[in-house]
Amino acid sequence: MLPVSVTPEAGGSAGLVDALFTAGSAVSVTGLIVVDTATYWSGFGHVVILALIELGGLGLMTFASLLGLLLVHRLGLRSRMATSASLGTPTTGDLRELVVGIAKVALTVQAATAVVLAARFALTYDYPPGQALWHGVFHAGSAFNNAGFALYSDNVMGFVADPWVCLPLAVAVILGGVGFPVFIELRRHVRVPRLWSMNTRIVLAGTAVLLVGGTVTITALEWDNPGTLGPLDVPAKLLAGFFAATVARTAGFNSVDTAEMNTQTWFAQDVLMFIGAGPAGTAGGIKITTAAVLLAIVLTEIRGEGAVNVFGKRLSRSVHRQAITVLTLSVAVVMGSTWALLITTQFTLDQLVFEVISAFATVGLSTGITHLLPDGGQLLLVVVMFAGRVGPVTLATALALRSRKRLYELPKERPLIG
Amino acid sequence: MLPVSVTPEAGGSAGLVDALFTAGSAVSVTGLIVVDTATYWSGFGHVVILALIELGGLGLMTFASLLGLLLVHRLGLRSRMATSASLGTPTTGDLRELVVGIAKVALTVQAATAVVLAARFALTYDYPPGQALWHGVFHAGSAFNNAGFALYSDNVMGFVADPWVCLPLAVAVILGGVGFPVFIELRRHVRVPRLWSMNTRIVLAGTAVLLVGGTVTITALEWDNPGTLGPLDVPAKLLAGFFAATVARTAGFNSVDTAEMNTQTWFAQDVLMFIGAGPAGTAGGIKITTAAVLLAIVLTEIRGEGAVNVFGKRLSRSVHRQAITVLTLSVAVVMGSTWALLITTQFTLDQLVFEVISAFATVGLSTGITHLLPDGGQLLLVVVMFAGRVGPVTLATALALRSRKRLYELPKERPLIG
Ligand SMILES: [K+]
Ligand SMILES: [K+]
Repeated sequence: MLPVSVTPEAGGSAGLVDALFTAGSAVSVTGLIVVDTATYWSGFGHVVILALIELGGLGLMTFASLLGLLLVHRLGLRSRMATSASLGTPTTGDLRELVVGIAKVALTVQAATAVVLAARFALTYDYPPGQALWHGVFHAGSAFNNAGFALYSDNVMGFVADPWVCLPLAVAVILGGVGFPVFIELRRHVRVPRLWSMNTRIVLAGTAVLLVGGTVTITALEWDNPGTLGPLDVPAKLLAGFFAATVARTAGFNSVDTAEMNTQTWFAQDVLMFIGAGPAGTAGGIKITTAAVLLAIVLTEIRGEGAVNVFGKRLSRSVHRQAITVLTLSVAVVMGSTWALLITTQFTLDQLVFEVISAFATVGLSTGITHLLPDGGQLLLVVVMFAGRVGPVTLATALALRSRKRLYELPKERPLIG
Repeated sequence: MLPVSVTPEAGGSAGLVDALFTAGSAVSVTGLIVVDTATYWSGFGHVVILALIELGGLGLMTFASLLGLLLVHRLGLRSRMATSASLGTPTTGDLRELVVGIAKVALTVQAATAVVLAARFALTYDYPPGQALWHGVFHAGSAFNNAGFALYSDNVMGFVADPWVCLPLAVAVILGGVGFPVFIELRRHVRVPRLWSMNTRIVLAGTAVLLVGGTVTITALEWDNPGTLGPLDVPAKLLAGFFAATVARTAGFNSVDTAEMNTQTWFAQDVLMFIGAGPAGTAGGIKITTAAVLLAIVLTEIRGEGAVNVFGKRLSRSVHRQAITVLTLSVAVVMGSTWALLITTQFTLDQLVFEVISAFATVGLSTGITHLLPDGGQLLLVVVMFAGRVGPVTLATALALRSRKRLYELPKERPLIG
């Protein structure tokens, strides 16, 4: 994790802030960059970046899954994440099962993605075999870990109309984003949806809704934009729109130029980025589940029902307040950081909101201002990336695990709302 | 409430959208304008505008207080808003007491404010007696009802350094904003804080925090701005900063040019505007109480306590979900409207967010774009004003009053959060 080990060879000396920013961006799998990944860092630097991505992505996946396992044991929750869920502390056997499981999933998805990409690079783009394989491995790792780093100066804009590159990347991104618990459940009960947990149902339904809604919105808004989808034929427009919706949810690759998009498209991407994907995966954001809990509360209130029910199960009441807390603190971090950058830079609100949400949700898309920010602003973004990476999951788990003192209750009262 | 009765004499014919917008802005006590109030409308037009303001402001205050009274009776809540709180439906006696009480408060505050203003206008600015009195009455009504309309083309910028105009206006604004229930309680128990309800404590504490925090923030950010506080001496800077913080919470007067403020000041004002002031008053926004409930939930979660306690009382659990619902739907209206204007106009995100929050929270401050919006955009703002004016209180009361079906409970489950 030492930024100094990212050795620059081309493009001048690596400033400390540049190295720190790149290492922080890689290990938090954000993908924001202040220097051109392709030309500024050496081949060895690229290996270090991929290692940091795997460390950060798989590390966080393991950490979050472990926290989830702890919750399952401690709270005695119904879940099929672990075969041996029982009250008490997870055993070393559970932990071993978890790490092996994650390793298997990561290796399988990344290897399959790398093979498809490498074949395409070698056969269609005439890369030499070694380079084709390395580019396949790097981009598969960057995709599954939702990092969004690419070995091209224009990220993956060169492949905007190539489904053999964009679709494997999108599949790896989506699979990394659904989270390990969903993966395990699907492997065991893929044909028996009635056995799926609430977590899996919410993540899968939410992923579908966000992908379809995001694709339609972005494609429609950018259809005629000469800087983005305008010059493409219809199949390529649809592919690029789908890809943009997929990566906005947390991966951060870009096959069209984000800076050229309409400000209303940025706004739609802000929403996708802030929500992110599933818990205990490689995605950032407040997570689909947190957003779904809030939506379920609102729908329940509007329908006038007593209990918040989701997919035929009652939503545990303790989760309500935890979801509100994660949302409120996330909004506070985003608003506070945006405000700090508004005061210290000359960029516009839409650019800064986009940049901060991208960092907080470890997405890595940018309207092109990252490298123009002052050092202080770049360091703030590194802090936001880490806060966004480990904050929500750690906070939510800590809240859920904490023992509650309830020695006595005060008399009840209510203020007027609204 | 007929826009046609606002008869234009100077400045050309009143277009239908202009008249509709002005009437809507007045009756919703927002104060956004598309034509110059001072020069475009006749003296009779000004009378109509004041009548609409009183109708809208006092009407909403009565409506919201009545809904609060209904809650008190129906839910059997502890409250001193009505002397005869008992289970069942409010009696006509309760209603009469309410209307008379509101009329007394409105008349007292407005008369006192009008007298001070009229004296100042006559003695210092040499207005003829009739004009001084009318200007006093109009601006007192506009202030107490948090409307923000003024009879000057530059709103109240001509009085930026005059405490004898700005302070009476600010006091009337604050008193109108705390809401009728707080007023009644203070009149009865002003020296016995332990008898105050949770509603009164939250509103008073929140008002103090928002006024002090807002004044410090705005004054600091605008201190050297040549377009706003820059040219003023220190006492005038403080007066103008305090006035700007006071009116951002919902009144919408301006003693400095909002368009000239820094974008980071707009951002701070966005927060003040969105929160607003107390329930069952003349203010808009989600209300201090809604924001306080959310803050209390977050603090409780962070402290790891079982029940959400505020000022020594337990916060009724049913209020949690209602506050979340009001917040979420308010955010949805603001974001959706902002997005619609982003698509249909060329204004920047910071301008449009400010304009939409100003309309939703019936504030009436503007970065200067209101009259430049297309007709469709102006009509959208009228809808947003009304949604913001009656939406949150109606929604929250409907949620609280609804009988809940709880015939059976489904088995409990929880997804992973964060
Ligand atoms: K990323
Ligand atoms: K107003």
